[in-house]
Amino acid sequence: MTKGEQTKDHILERSAALFNRFGYNATSFGDIMADTGLEKGGIYNHFASKEALMLEAFEYAVERLNGRYSAALEGERDAVGRLNAVLAVFEATITDPPIRGGCPLLNAATESDDALPTLRSRVRRAINGWLTTIVGIVERGQLEGQLKRDVDASSTASVIFSALEGAVMLSRLYRDPAHIRSVVAFLKTYLQSLKQTAQS
Amino acid sequence: MTKGEQTKDHILERSAALFNRFGYNATSFGDIMADTGLEKGGIYNHFASKEALMLEAFEYAVERLNGRYSAALEGERDAVGRLNAVLAVFEATITDPPIRGGCPLLNAATESDDALPTLRSRVRRAINGWLTTIVGIVERGQLEGQLKRDVDASSTASVIFSALEGAVMLSRLYRDPAHIRSVVAFLKTYLQSLKQTAQS
Repeated sequence: MTKGEQTKDHILERSAALFNRFGYNATSFGDIMADTGLEKGGIYNHFASKEALMLEAFEYAVERLNGRYSAALEGERDAVGRLNAVLAVFEATITDPPIRGGCPLLNAATESDDALPTLRSRVRRAINGWLTTIVGIVERGQLEGQLKRDVDASSTASVIFSALEGAVMLSRLYRDPAHIRSVVAFLKTYLQSLKQTAQS
Repeated sequence: MTKGEQTKDHILERSAALFNRFGYNATSFGDIMADTGLEKGGIYNHFASKEALMLEAFEYAVERLNGRYSAALEGERDAVGRLNAVLAVFEATITDPPIRGGCPLLNAATESDDALPTLRSRVRRAINGWLTTIVGIVERGQLEGQLKRDVDASSTASVIFSALEGAVMLSRLYRDPAHIRSVVAFLKTYLQSLKQTAQS
């Protein structure tokens, strides 16, 4: 990385954590200057506006989260194994957050649903990526005879993703991993129930 | 209500919706003045600070949400009926929000988990109230022989509440009630599976 790229990466890393912890609207340019140790001009060299920085910082945080999925997928060859990899990624946002402040999707979604329309469209795309991934795993599992044919892939994706994000919210609020653990244990049992059985 | 009480109620109603839609930190005193049509002094007559207003507005929003539960409970005499009333309250936050901006618990929880410690303790208390309610319904249902004895009340509360709030997040983000509907349908089936059966 060039020096300029290093500075840009430093700004993204620090501001992504500030936005994720304190909110996109509530984090000021001054907060980012203080946290990065850079002057206004040093930030504007890399980002045209606070909005541009906000959107890039969100994408940076999402890439951190999504990158974990590829790692968790390794060696998983069937649908239940792949879905368990999804559970592992979200469970880890509590014990070892990809970025300080918990799940960047949850935080940006609740903040942007009524405000920040440009951020909202990025959040929609990012979460849609996760929902589509889950739908794809379920449909492939059905085609390959691993999952029951009557499972509705789209509802299953809503259920899994909702339960995980709601549990992240609870575990973050109470600083207590019990909620995410209960939900992950529940979802694991649920995933077993989706399996195609020999006689079905 | 006296004139003073009416003004206070007006401020709470308007500011609760602003906080719920745009965030507690991001909503300024100026935004509240503009939205209520009151001068600064007219608001300070009733609330000592923005923080005091923020906390009272949160409680106001929570009371609106919680009040719906008593209504939904009416006539429900067994555990599954009571738990279905919980589902109905959260499903309605999409189609007919108790306060503009969706579920006040979800919004305040994600905003306050890293910031706003005084708000966070109110949110913890409010959500704890819901979790305790669900635990109580399950335990009473077990005592009364309606629900299986091996159901873990505390995990069940985490699962139900997490799935509902995560689905509220998705349905608000996409302006699409499909997510909450899928999750409520799923939870209804799950609740049936908790029922004590004649032979068990």
